[in-house]
Amino acid sequence: MPTYKYPRPALTVDCVIFGFDRQSTLKVMLIQRKLTPFQGSWALPGGFVRIDESIEAAALRELQEETGLEKLFLEQLYTFGAVDRDPRERIVTVAYYALINLEEYVVKAASDASDAAWFAIDALPPLAFDHDQILLIALNRLKNKVQYEPIGFELLPRKFTLFQLQKLYETILGHELDKRNFRKKILKMGLLRELNEVQQDVPHRAAKLYEFDEVAYEQLREKGFNFEI
Amino acid sequence: MPTYKYPRPALTVDCVIFGFDRQSTLKVMLIQRKLTPFQGSWALPGGFVRIDESIEAAALRELQEETGLEKLFLEQLYTFGAVDRDPRERIVTVAYYALINLEEYVVKAASDASDAAWFAIDALPPLAFDHDQILLIALNRLKNKVQYEPIGFELLPRKFTLFQLQKLYETILGHELDKRNFRKKILKMGLLRELNEVQQDVPHRAAKLYEFDEVAYEQLREKGFNFEI
Repeated sequence: MPTYKYPRPALTVDCVIFGFDRQSTLKVMLIQRKLTPFQGSWALPGGFVRIDESIEAAALRELQEETGLEKLFLEQLYTFGAVDRDPRERIVTVAYYALINLEEYVVKAASDASDAAWFAIDALPPLAFDHDQILLIALNRLKNKVQYEPIGFELLPRKFTLFQLQKLYETILGHELDKRNFRKKILKMGLLRELNEVQQDVPHRAAKLYEFDEVAYEQLREKGFNFEI
Repeated sequence: MPTYKYPRPALTVDCVIFGFDRQSTLKVMLIQRKLTPFQGSWALPGGFVRIDESIEAAALRELQEETGLEKLFLEQLYTFGAVDRDPRERIVTVAYYALINLEEYVVKAASDASDAAWFAIDALPPLAFDHDQILLIALNRLKNKVQYEPIGFELLPRKFTLFQLQKLYETILGHELDKRNFRKKILKMGLLRELNEVQQDVPHRAAKLYEFDEVAYEQLREKGFNFEI
């Protein structure tokens, strides 16, 4: 058992995985804890960083073990280190976040978690530890991000309607947007390619489908903009 | 001596403190290491996080001990955790950064560091550990920041000329800007208050002085913009 000259905080990772479903609901992936503390509570997937793996590798491993999600593009969010954030002992956690399209991922609960499930952002259960704070900061990061960078590529199906894209923005920003204004702004960016197709099997009038222009998307992502919505 | 079930990485902090001087040079604060490894090399100020202090408190304490700088507004930059980033053992470091006006701060080297000094960004010595990478990421953060948020309040003297402000942007962005264009854009933002004063004791024609409108500055900082320079 390793012994050190001075006491050391334990180091963990936590992952905020956002998903967007067919019904235009923004969701987050939670796992139900099997062990104390907060046994039975819902929490962000995560766990301890091993001595021989990078922090990001630990986040990817824990995600895979606890939720079955693999090969996500994780971005580092923030490191949380309040002295009393864990009742067990001093634990510092590095939080990551990712955006995924729910239709492409099937989630299976695995080893550590008795359950893994998607929760709508506006109907969350109480969370273990300071995970509500971590989630809040991830949501704010997402809100900021949509002002300066194109978003949706990771969250929407490959072909989508302008209504779906607007719903995505509204869900992330937490308020409604003017339809005409939104369409004007988003089309002006040269980000979308209008397809010669319409929606299939919808009860209402089928809307036109669009896809992202990957080159324009990448350029705008690097250059940035101000959406001012 | 504390013993744990599994080996733990050590946790440190490192601080990237940017300063801007009268000669419009962007500088960074470095300390010369007294101890191995990298004895005699220059490094970012920093050190180990104590078990009973938050990560930010550790950063503020180390800064004070090593450089004499106090009460800075630190922003968390990124956490670096590559397995081999320190030759001693596995050490994860949380990096912070801050911007200060060099005329307001006098730096004294203290306990841990045999020397603390400001270095111009374009004339840096080789740095210890992965500190060149940390500095690069801090610089990139700064470059991004100036595109979306007003900057200069912390770096410039209270009263400054448009030339000084332009120099600040040019230094951070690493390239020259068109004078007329820059002035037009910056004045249009409603961020500056023109003073009824000019520079004193300058060998050239004295330029008009400006100060930031704190309310407008704060509003723009929250709202964001796209400077597109």
